[in-house]
Amino acid sequence: MSKHDTDLSLLFHALADPTRRSILTRLAREPARVTDLAEPTGLRLPTVMRHLAVLEQAGLISTVKDGRIRTCAIVPDAFDPVRAWLDEQRAIWEARLDRLEAFVMTVMKERDE
Amino acid sequence: MSKHDTDLSLLFHALADPTRRSILTRLAREPARVTDLAEPTGLRLPTVMRHLAVLEQAGLISTVKDGRIRTCAIVPDAFDPVRAWLDEQRAIWEARLDRLEAFVMTVMKERDE
Repeated sequence: MSKHDTDLSLLFHALADPTRRSILTRLAREPARVTDLAEPTGLRLPTVMRHLAVLEQAGLISTVKDGRIRTCAIVPDAFDPVRAWLDEQRAIWEARLDRLEAFVMTVMKERDE
Repeated sequence: MSKHDTDLSLLFHALADPTRRSILTRLAREPARVTDLAEPTGLRLPTVMRHLAVLEQAGLISTVKDGRIRTCAIVPDAFDPVRAWLDEQRAIWEARLDRLEAFVMTVMKERDE
């Protein structure tokens, strides 16, 4: 499995959890401390830390520790590989529609001749 | 957790596996029989069937059985919720950049006065 494939799998896996998605949405607004991120989830701190580790491993967030306070921030371009993969699928699909359309046109032309 | 959240989690989970992504890319080109999908993966048929079940549960593919032959096809608009979620995150992020820019402009204006 290529590194690109591994990265994509990590990204999609990180996004597959509603708590992790809500943390990302929160961080899109502004950086936040781990304790502040934990509060609205109602989850215990170690559980939130595990979610943050998954997000960090996927490259979606970065964290900085200052003394005892850890602050998290979103990584702006981290969604790019996901978007690129979706665009690739759409391009393949659209090429297929183009071929189908060309085929239909040929059949119609032959019928009219 | 809302149905929308559950759907998104199923979608992202389905996309988090390289075998499932390669099956989707193959199906974007044309519908295919389960046996034909299994062949390039080098995986046993029951394993491939499990992957297909995950894709079908997420609404990414549909399958039709004709006698003993099961054919799979991609569901064209199935990626839409994923795209919508990504767009939503980008909008939040861009609004934050706009606020930041407006703040910088205000500070610069005050400095010049």
